[in-house]
Amino acid sequence: MHQGQELDLFHERGSTRLWIGPGAFDRSRADLGSWLKGRRVFVVTSAPVRRLHGRRLTAALEGAVSLVWLEVADGEDGKSLAAVEQVTREMIEAGGKRDSRLVTFGGGSVGDVGGFVASCFLRGIEYAHVPTTLLAQVDASIGGKTGVNLPQAKNSIGAFHQPRFVVSDSGVLSTLPREQIRQGLFEVVKAAILADAKLFALIEQRLAELLEGEREALSAAVEAAVAVKVAIVAADEREGDRRRLLNLGHTLGHALETTVGHGLLAHGDAVGHGMLFAVELARRRRLADQDADRMRSLVERMEPVALPELDREKVLEAMGRDKKARESGLSWVLPIRLGAAEVVDGLDPRDVEPLLASYLTGSVESA
Amino acid sequence: MHQGQELDLFHERGSTRLWIGPGAFDRSRADLGSWLKGRRVFVVTSAPVRRLHGRRLTAALEGAVSLVWLEVADGEDGKSLAAVEQVTREMIEAGGKRDSRLVTFGGGSVGDVGGFVASCFLRGIEYAHVPTTLLAQVDASIGGKTGVNLPQAKNSIGAFHQPRFVVSDSGVLSTLPREQIRQGLFEVVKAAILADAKLFALIEQRLAELLEGEREALSAAVEAAVAVKVAIVAADEREGDRRRLLNLGHTLGHALETTVGHGLLAHGDAVGHGMLFAVELARRRRLADQDADRMRSLVERMEPVALPELDREKVLEAMGRDKKARESGLSWVLPIRLGAAEVVDGLDPRDVEPLLASYLTGSVESA
Repeated sequence: MHQGQELDLFHERGSTRLWIGPGAFDRSRADLGSWLKGRRVFVVTSAPVRRLHGRRLTAALEGAVSLVWLEVADGEDGKSLAAVEQVTREMIEAGGKRDSRLVTFGGGSVGDVGGFVASCFLRGIEYAHVPTTLLAQVDASIGGKTGVNLPQAKNSIGAFHQPRFVVSDSGVLSTLPREQIRQGLFEVVKAAILADAKLFALIEQRLAELLEGEREALSAAVEAAVAVKVAIVAADEREGDRRRLLNLGHTLGHALETTVGHGLLAHGDAVGHGMLFAVELARRRRLADQDADRMRSLVERMEPVALPELDREKVLEAMGRDKKARESGLSWVLPIRLGAAEVVDGLDPRDVEPLLASYLTGSVESA
Repeated sequence: MHQGQELDLFHERGSTRLWIGPGAFDRSRADLGSWLKGRRVFVVTSAPVRRLHGRRLTAALEGAVSLVWLEVADGEDGKSLAAVEQVTREMIEAGGKRDSRLVTFGGGSVGDVGGFVASCFLRGIEYAHVPTTLLAQVDASIGGKTGVNLPQAKNSIGAFHQPRFVVSDSGVLSTLPREQIRQGLFEVVKAAILADAKLFALIEQRLAELLEGEREALSAAVEAAVAVKVAIVAADEREGDRRRLLNLGHTLGHALETTVGHGLLAHGDAVGHGMLFAVELARRRRLADQDADRMRSLVERMEPVALPELDREKVLEAMGRDKKARESGLSWVLPIRLGAAEVVDGLDPRDVEPLLASYLTGSVESA
């Protein structure tokens, strides 16, 4: 049985301590207790998460003077400036101060909006992430990216604000429906392709168990994926070339989410399509057929949802508007082999467009 | 004739270059030009400032590919999350990217909201302040504090985000009405009390000319006040004890603004009252009567507007809600002598309340 894992992520303003896996709530109790002691604590969460796991969190945060629960809508709908305004107003009303604490408790969107509130409330207060979905445990909770959406573009308002603590307990994953695990696994596969061939092999071998939420397999996968992300973020906090590796599958993925419509295409599925497309792009450069086949085969076994018919021009336009785009043009993350990838800037759009056209019409396999 | 001044403020992520005084636009042109070259540039401004000085800015920013003008309401009304949403939407629509540039052009409130937009647009882009009021030149443009208001509390949503450049040209001050100069001079006096007895003497001697906007006196005062603030911020970017010195007059000042109503009591007048009150508090500790008299006399010569009748309980409550307040209680900045002050935490409220009561009823002189 896995005993779980502790990691420290060092960044420009200090460090983040992460507890991962079984018993993370228990293992973090002493450190969280002294961090919270005598403080007002604001918990940003969603109603379903509070209902399912609220008691566990209350037990874990027993050191706080008072917990103020603040609920936002689940999913991308909750990530709005209106939610930021509502939450910060309630914090002011409840006497929030600069040395108050904030805890996000939920999936990635709750973490994103809660983290952004922590970054801008009275110009920044300390906070912790307690992620309750697989996707949030392996991705959103690590690295200090916070933000909300504008109708025109996801995550277009935000900040880099590192949490002081991350508590990713396996226990809260047990209530996840299979579909949410499947969505989260796309980011685990991304981590494996980028930097951990052993993790990739584990997913290949135990995909069925993982999708069923088998606890030991899932803990092992989460710990490995977290370690990949921590290593990349620690090397490069603010999206130089190292951190941009984490955008594997996201250049196209974000554009697909925008074009299909937020909430209509899940993030994991979008990244799944983005990775399949990146593998094809990479194959045309320097990715060996054998590794490309393994990558494509695994992503396909995870069954990314079929895309509706999409206007290629709109997808291209959405890529241009994506926040990753610089004046200098789009950048792509392309696998080199299992466990290694590179960031490529300034690909000729004429090379990308035809492949995109055939991908969107589903004929990429014969391309 | 003053030749103007250049200063560099070093902070944790790099440095800010400031050009102050006569000819600042001309002196900054080359550096701004290379910073803007080939970029999309967003100018956050207000309609009156654009009308009065827009051409000068266009000339100063000649290196930009395209200028996109974004207008917000002048004054505290413009400092809202609604304005942030409107400006960022327009930036997305106009193709704003991570390496686009933002320039704030106006008074302190335009700088605050524009700087906050720069801090959170795509998680942060580079920006410059071009302040056009005395208050903004000597205070708001220096130090990287940005933010907007909630109805319940000023500056309660914001970020520390240092500008890359500050261009404080004397020329734009020539259109300022006397009243705006008077408001700005309260912050100049604050700088003098904190750290520059020579500047204090200059204001004592030339107050009438300063209020009339006499160019040479005003340039000298601006340069000295900017130097005080730069030195304090460079020593301590994020409100440790050094930077908290800048709150002289603001513990009570902010509370007065909140209680009277934003827009109904000007910031300078509020800080004027806050300084008079701090001088009285300080006199009861260790400030010599002679320096206290000089401070009070100068602030009174600047004629802070009379306060309406105020409920002392409401003022106390507003002080508790001020963002400077920590769970541990209020802190006060108290002058020790001309050119030196200290931060005092945890003053007994029983010592402060009676003095506040007599100050608010106008009987402080006999206290």
